[in-house]
Amino acid sequence: MSILVVGSVAFDSVKTPFGEKNHILGGAATYFSVAASFFSDVAIVGVVGDDFGPREEEVFRHRGIDISGIERVRGQQSFHWKGEYGFDLNVARTLDTQLNVFADFKPKLTDRLRDFPFIFLANIQPQLQREVRMQMKRPSLVAADTMNYWIENTREELIETLKGVDLLIINDSEARELAGEPNLVRAAKRILKMGPRRLVVKRGEYGAAMFGAGSYFSSPAYPLDDVFDPAGAGDSFAGGFMGYLAASGRTDEAALRRAMIYGSIMASYNVQEFSCSRMLRLSHDEIDQRFGELRAMTHFEDGDAPRRQV
Amino acid sequence: MSILVVGSVAFDSVKTPFGEKNHILGGAATYFSVAASFFSDVAIVGVVGDDFGPREEEVFRHRGIDISGIERVRGQQSFHWKGEYGFDLNVARTLDTQLNVFADFKPKLTDRLRDFPFIFLANIQPQLQREVRMQMKRPSLVAADTMNYWIENTREELIETLKGVDLLIINDSEARELAGEPNLVRAAKRILKMGPRRLVVKRGEYGAAMFGAGSYFSSPAYPLDDVFDPAGAGDSFAGGFMGYLAASGRTDEAALRRAMIYGSIMASYNVQEFSCSRMLRLSHDEIDQRFGELRAMTHFEDGDAPRRQV
Repeated sequence: MSILVVGSVAFDSVKTPFGEKNHILGGAATYFSVAASFFSDVAIVGVVGDDFGPREEEVFRHRGIDISGIERVRGQQSFHWKGEYGFDLNVARTLDTQLNVFADFKPKLTDRLRDFPFIFLANIQPQLQREVRMQMKRPSLVAADTMNYWIENTREELIETLKGVDLLIINDSEARELAGEPNLVRAAKRILKMGPRRLVVKRGEYGAAMFGAGSYFSSPAYPLDDVFDPAGAGDSFAGGFMGYLAASGRTDEAALRRAMIYGSIMASYNVQEFSCSRMLRLSHDEIDQRFGELRAMTHFEDGDAPRRQV
Repeated sequence: MSILVVGSVAFDSVKTPFGEKNHILGGAATYFSVAASFFSDVAIVGVVGDDFGPREEEVFRHRGIDISGIERVRGQQSFHWKGEYGFDLNVARTLDTQLNVFADFKPKLTDRLRDFPFIFLANIQPQLQREVRMQMKRPSLVAADTMNYWIENTREELIETLKGVDLLIINDSEARELAGEPNLVRAAKRILKMGPRRLVVKRGEYGAAMFGAGSYFSSPAYPLDDVFDPAGAGDSFAGGFMGYLAASGRTDEAALRRAMIYGSIMASYNVQEFSCSRMLRLSHDEIDQRFGELRAMTHFEDGDAPRRQV
């Protein structure tokens, strides 16, 4: 099955302890679609400016990603994010955000795109997420991301959007803030009452957790000694996750768990280089290899259960 | 097999967002030995003052813990720790530490105790850890804990102690600080060159990780909606871990991995009440139950590996 993603296609200026790059291709929809493209067909709905040229188009073409839904606005620049990471690579510090073309973005989906069965509402204004959601005909799975900024500034709109979302994929500080509850297990219970049937919590180097009604799954992060640029980790996780689900055409617990592992794998490769460079050189064999390694890294056996009596 | 633990038997005054308790039984050797006692015989080497009375003795007797190696110092008080936890229950803030009897503690082991095969050097001055280590005849496994204070203030002594340690059990900020390296995978590689053949990294609500030469295991924390008092979580983890190993008499990879799970289980029960109250009411069936749940929470299957070609 195919996935539609709505979100930013942007340029980033990123500084990490290991280097600095200006004006590199970024944006949630970019990372998401590149990761998802290893598993299933994916189309983007978004908006770019004059700075989005043939070089950027080639990235998407190379991965067979449908960018016919990306609107071009003449005389303006694409969305631009500038941020930096310290040695604690789990937390980004935003230095500057220029919405540019995104300021007046009103997504309008063609009939063909409205028919897509899987949809990912990447981290954009909740009102925009809802407008896209409402244009979809009968999606079989709607997943969404959001961030602290929307939780703090557009809470009511976000709550409204969540009513139409099956699966929410956010990081753990966002989950705590959305629920207004420091305990993650309780926070998850509250969020599952807001609409989503599943909550996926991304925890950076600590892996990810998935909460459902009466179910819990914990997946580790792939251990890396060369995390280079964490930008896009969450979106490539979501791309691997949704890409696998769409390819398998299933959304049962076993499929969702494997999707978590594919999400972790795509995120792990993505952070090893700036932008989505590493993913663009990735092979299916390399994906399979980390899948096997993650299985080995989490495996333990039932055994003797010693019971000392006192 | 039996375990010898050297460490503090103390009184704690703890404040958490959920309540406050003064002068309750605590100390690393206390939490460790109570947790380990569910699996194997355990004896404590430590020191207490006049405030350690029949009520405290009864806790250890109740769990069949050998306290003949606990020295009593007349006219002095036991070690006292005062601390608090905020809503981020992963981090304790120490408000006051009174060494009292610990200031002049010189552990002297009887011949019987020097024969123990498993030993845990809980978080005390590295010099004391080494003195105990040197008195042991031929231990089959030496494990140790430490903390930032010793890493910062007695680094050389600690490095010396680590040469005689097989397995180091510390938390992740300690691992990063000990290695002088923010990336945990690289930090682990450096620490494994200091002596230990295994490094176990405790990560609070994110679980734990075990590093060996060419091996890695990630175990989740048991998800709780009622974390009440995190004090002693790390020591009850170590107690469950070592207790299981000593009971099984094995230290191979499969046994170490199951030990990680038993460690997580004991820590998860311990944090649900103040002091070691919850562990004192714990049954073997309850331990087995969480073992099964943790297996289910981490299980995923090999499946189709969709390979989209572009």
